[in-house]
Amino acid sequence: MARNTQVQADHNAPPVTRILAEYVATHSSRGWSDAVDHEAHRTFLNWLGCAVGAAHHEAAAAALAAVGVLQPAPQATVAGRREKVDIASAALINGITSHTFDFDDTHLKTIIHPAGPVASALLALAELKGASGRELIDALVLGIDVACRMGNVVYPEHYDRGWHITGTTGMLGAAAGCARLLGLNADQTQMALGIAASQPIGLREQFGTMTKPFHPGAAARAGLMSALLAQQGFTASPRALEAPRGFAQVVSTKTAWNEATDELGRRFEISFNSYKPFACGIVIHPSIDACVQLRAQGVAADQVERIELKVHSLVLELTGKKEPADGLQGKFSVYHGCAAGLIFGKATEDEYADDIVNRADMVALRRKVVATVDDGIDEASADVTAVLADGRRVHVFVEHAIGSLQRPMSDADLERKFSGMSDPVLGAQRTAALIAACWELGGAADVRALAALARPA
Amino acid sequence: MARNTQVQADHNAPPVTRILAEYVATHSSRGWSDAVDHEAHRTFLNWLGCAVGAAHHEAAAAALAAVGVLQPAPQATVAGRREKVDIASAALINGITSHTFDFDDTHLKTIIHPAGPVASALLALAELKGASGRELIDALVLGIDVACRMGNVVYPEHYDRGWHITGTTGMLGAAAGCARLLGLNADQTQMALGIAASQPIGLREQFGTMTKPFHPGAAARAGLMSALLAQQGFTASPRALEAPRGFAQVVSTKTAWNEATDELGRRFEISFNSYKPFACGIVIHPSIDACVQLRAQGVAADQVERIELKVHSLVLELTGKKEPADGLQGKFSVYHGCAAGLIFGKATEDEYADDIVNRADMVALRRKVVATVDDGIDEASADVTAVLADGRRVHVFVEHAIGSLQRPMSDADLERKFSGMSDPVLGAQRTAALIAACWELGGAADVRALAALARPA
Repeated sequence: MARNTQVQADHNAPPVTRILAEYVATHSSRGWSDAVDHEAHRTFLNWLGCAVGAAHHEAAAAALAAVGVLQPAPQATVAGRREKVDIASAALINGITSHTFDFDDTHLKTIIHPAGPVASALLALAELKGASGRELIDALVLGIDVACRMGNVVYPEHYDRGWHITGTTGMLGAAAGCARLLGLNADQTQMALGIAASQPIGLREQFGTMTKPFHPGAAARAGLMSALLAQQGFTASPRALEAPRGFAQVVSTKTAWNEATDELGRRFEISFNSYKPFACGIVIHPSIDACVQLRAQGVAADQVERIELKVHSLVLELTGKKEPADGLQGKFSVYHGCAAGLIFGKATEDEYADDIVNRADMVALRRKVVATVDDGIDEASADVTAVLADGRRVHVFVEHAIGSLQRPMSDADLERKFSGMSDPVLGAQRTAALIAACWELGGAADVRALAALARPA
Repeated sequence: MARNTQVQADHNAPPVTRILAEYVATHSSRGWSDAVDHEAHRTFLNWLGCAVGAAHHEAAAAALAAVGVLQPAPQATVAGRREKVDIASAALINGITSHTFDFDDTHLKTIIHPAGPVASALLALAELKGASGRELIDALVLGIDVACRMGNVVYPEHYDRGWHITGTTGMLGAAAGCARLLGLNADQTQMALGIAASQPIGLREQFGTMTKPFHPGAAARAGLMSALLAQQGFTASPRALEAPRGFAQVVSTKTAWNEATDELGRRFEISFNSYKPFACGIVIHPSIDACVQLRAQGVAADQVERIELKVHSLVLELTGKKEPADGLQGKFSVYHGCAAGLIFGKATEDEYADDIVNRADMVALRRKVVATVDDGIDEASADVTAVLADGRRVHVFVEHAIGSLQRPMSDADLERKFSGMSDPVLGAQRTAALIAACWELGGAADVRALAALARPA
């Protein structure tokens, strides 16, 4: 959940990004002295000599061998598309798409979305290798364990400072998972984690832009490449995670080392993973859930005179937008969420389409939602009463929303969620086969059969 | 120059990297409960549905188009080698090799090595496009300006915290340079800088491993890909550099914004670039330089009874190793450096080979070096006296070493340095042609001619 403990934030910085962008795009060619231009040639010459000189160093050989694994031929599936791309690009793109709707999984202790970086790297690599489903699942459990444990080490200070923790721990999870899938030994795995430790990806400032889902994608790619480099003998600090100038101490002032090691191999962080039932910030979920329950109890939108909503103050602070203009704004509107719950019985990406947000019945219903702050109500809860035209009052109190650890989505819920996203892309029949392949993955002889089902026929 | 102002460093952290590596490499397959294994399948299923669902989102389309630029055919030169690879991999590898010998350039105000990330990305992209030399040089000046200016904004706090500033600003320089080379407008360039801002690469803990030179390589690749993504319409925060949760404020408590904007387009940071004459830490350079000068004055190693060396305390603190066992240790020995200067008149990578460090005359001579701390001597200076067998004393005082801004290497010095590295790889004739091509680059119609010369015949 969002806090704002960052000290001394400077909200009055000049628009440096814009200033530099204009400069780079518009400064005239050779718009400097002969001395500067000559220095540029000296810089280039010196750089090239250094590069040529080290061309046969073992670091060059290892890196070339690693990128050589990225075959010229298309290697790996982009889920939902016909194109195949090299495995590094597949890891990147599947990481982006899986987080694009903000609808993926959440390790609630750290608000890491662990599958994006880890599974994206693993499916690409497993497809290339023709790995078994068991190998992939093993690597997924262990990779997510590493990412979330390191998240536990640094959360919340790291997140509060401004890092998007999914991409800044995800590269460790992807590296660990890929190392496992490649069968690297402990020494090589240590190097893979070390190489990955230098590549934390993601700033919270990017929220609301495509670069947010880029973070898990880039973390997937970074972790995958780190494991490939380690396999080729590339070296890193053996203490890259914990040293004074290593990962944790550089990106956080909180370093609870015991979180990395306590109950290792007995407590698995994937047990604390949760799945979003609604395609919006988790703070609205109890309110939407309550409205879905009202609908299930027979309350219809056209009967409703007023919806009385009591919530924790944080809900209105973060999602209090009364008149959202489009789908993106809709994600920051508890009013829209309630209307979607009551009218559609769900709030998937479809219910955040621009035309739905602006549909007359949705607009009318959300205006009937009267939200008040009641800090006696936990931020995980919501209290909703529908006041009907005939004077009846229907009341629902949600202590923990669907999708929470206390009320996890059932397997059937997850299947419905999957179909809602996949049917329009792959068709219902292929989607059903893909769902079945996912459930049977642990026993699958070769991951490539599942990967093939994830592409349109 | 190294300081150690990091507060509250924890030097007693457990070996987390090792513990996690052993766990990942050795934990038994399916070594967890059925519930955990089922959660893994749920996690995978949920991830895949999200990825399929967003397969046709505009972010997916932009990212696919960007990786599509990485053609299946070999595209770009790996300097000094016959292999050609895709441009992202070429940026990575040339970035690695150019920093492998620690012999590249230094922006002394920030100790950024700017060419590694920027030139490596630019040569690959220019080669693919068939850009002119002028376009490349323009992009180099502007890209280095952006990287070093952002370095000035956050240095030294950022470096002291433990970041390897070359890779944590280099991705911005590479993005800026590539944006320029691609002809992106200011809006697109702003997005390129924004995407790059999420990818600072490099921890100082990695010094002494291959992951140190990996940092400029990965920064080159990250900046290049950021520009390609921006070209395809990928979005990022327009205030990614300066916002409270943007780059500078997340990675540093020092944010001297004026350094980004003062005299923009009039003062060019490449003017403050310097080139290493010796393949070791800059703190030893005055001492080596003094010994090279002794040799030029006719002092021969077999005449020497003693070398009296007076230096700043930092020199012995950082490079006081008396009996280095191999080339890498030799880089931390001012004694070896002095011996190399007097015997060879240089200290290139060749003089840091293991067999040179252990050669009898080198061992004998370095044992004759008597180093004393004299804090009246600046860390940029060295005072050396050779006491000869016949009783003569030959004295040299170096105020600023060769390669400093006060005593820059001449163009001829740079050519000699280049040849020393390139002759064994490309041969003397091709090396000479390549040097000429570098000097003439600003007027070259097509960069590909130079790139071809950088590959063995």
